[in-house]
Amino acid sequence: MRVVVPFGGREPKTRLAPFFDADERREFAVSMLRDVLDAVRAAGGDPAVVADAPVSVGASVTVDDRPLTEVVGDELAERDELGGDPVAVVMADLALATPAALARLFETDGDVVAAPGLGGGTNALVVRHPDFSVDYHGASILDHRRIARDVGCSFAEVDSMRLAVDVDEPSDLVEVLVHGEGRAREWLVDAGVRLERGSGRVEAVRARR
Amino acid sequence: MRVVVPFGGREPKTRLAPFFDADERREFAVSMLRDVLDAVRAAGGDPAVVADAPVSVGASVTVDDRPLTEVVGDELAERDELGGDPVAVVMADLALATPAALARLFETDGDVVAAPGLGGGTNALVVRHPDFSVDYHGASILDHRRIARDVGCSFAEVDSMRLAVDVDEPSDLVEVLVHGEGRAREWLVDAGVRLERGSGRVEAVRARR
Repeated sequence: MRVVVPFGGREPKTRLAPFFDADERREFAVSMLRDVLDAVRAAGGDPAVVADAPVSVGASVTVDDRPLTEVVGDELAERDELGGDPVAVVMADLALATPAALARLFETDGDVVAAPGLGGGTNALVVRHPDFSVDYHGASILDHRRIARDVGCSFAEVDSMRLAVDVDEPSDLVEVLVHGEGRAREWLVDAGVRLERGSGRVEAVRARR
Repeated sequence: MRVVVPFGGREPKTRLAPFFDADERREFAVSMLRDVLDAVRAAGGDPAVVADAPVSVGASVTVDDRPLTEVVGDELAERDELGGDPVAVVMADLALATPAALARLFETDGDVVAAPGLGGGTNALVVRHPDFSVDYHGASILDHRRIARDVGCSFAEVDSMRLAVDVDEPSDLVEVLVHGEGRAREWLVDAGVRLERGSGRVEAVRARR
């Protein structure tokens, strides 16, 4: 299955500025992208990165700096022109994604199959129906449910924590440290980020070097 | 399967104080508990509430105000005395839990099966091994992995967003509004809580009445 992986490489992960400078944020974002590409391949997918700036990650990369909704919309249109094979869209910051979680996404039946993200997002999609379109603004999972209903195609959701966590904020680093299995976790550990267990919620902290 | 559902009913959900007064927080917490009990039953479980104060929810309730680790520890000890049937522990604030997600937990093979919570927690457990013990302080999923390894029993994790989200903070209300299917969502809607879609992250807001 063709798996489009959109990557915002220009100023990635600005909300992690309390932890990392701009160069570090880009390194960390690329390490997550590489993990996602590995997991996609191990799940039997054929990944194609679409990035807003050139990036070298050992996969096909198309540079396209339009908004996400337009980029993915074109990918879906192209799918239809090429005969209608299913196409998947998997976000590049799913640092917890495993081959098993992605295989579950790819293998779930439905005209459209979505993995919701925390906060109302849509972290991954499989599209098998020509009339479905995407809208990534706001609470996109609600829009995607509605669009599927409006065009009369079936819509299934995959219940996965590993696909629900996209890494945007410092609190998300806890999840990478606890559940990550790849480069992104290793990058964090090398950068001195570790868990701190207080009496309340566990937090990620960065050791001063 | 016996399913212990610990419920803190004395001063529940204090971190939701920006949204609700103490009576409302208790009502909301009880509505989540009722949803969890329904989902447990629909998944074939036999729920038993252990609460730190009396609560009436149409299920067996034992009042026990000791810390969670001690309460669950006693339940596991009792399991062994009674012949070793598996026992599950499911938190009362899993407002997104569905019968399907819980069935996946109950049916996964392993001496111990855990559903991790966001932030390093352990939101649900199935225990089938006499030497396993619990420790709910701090990043409990790390402790539970370690304890299982130390006593030589197998440990499996269930990858579920619906079991990963426990409702503690205002941002968690977004998940209930987007994914909830029961009383807790209905209670929020009746209380005037709704999604607000700005240009950035979706938030829950409460309308003034």
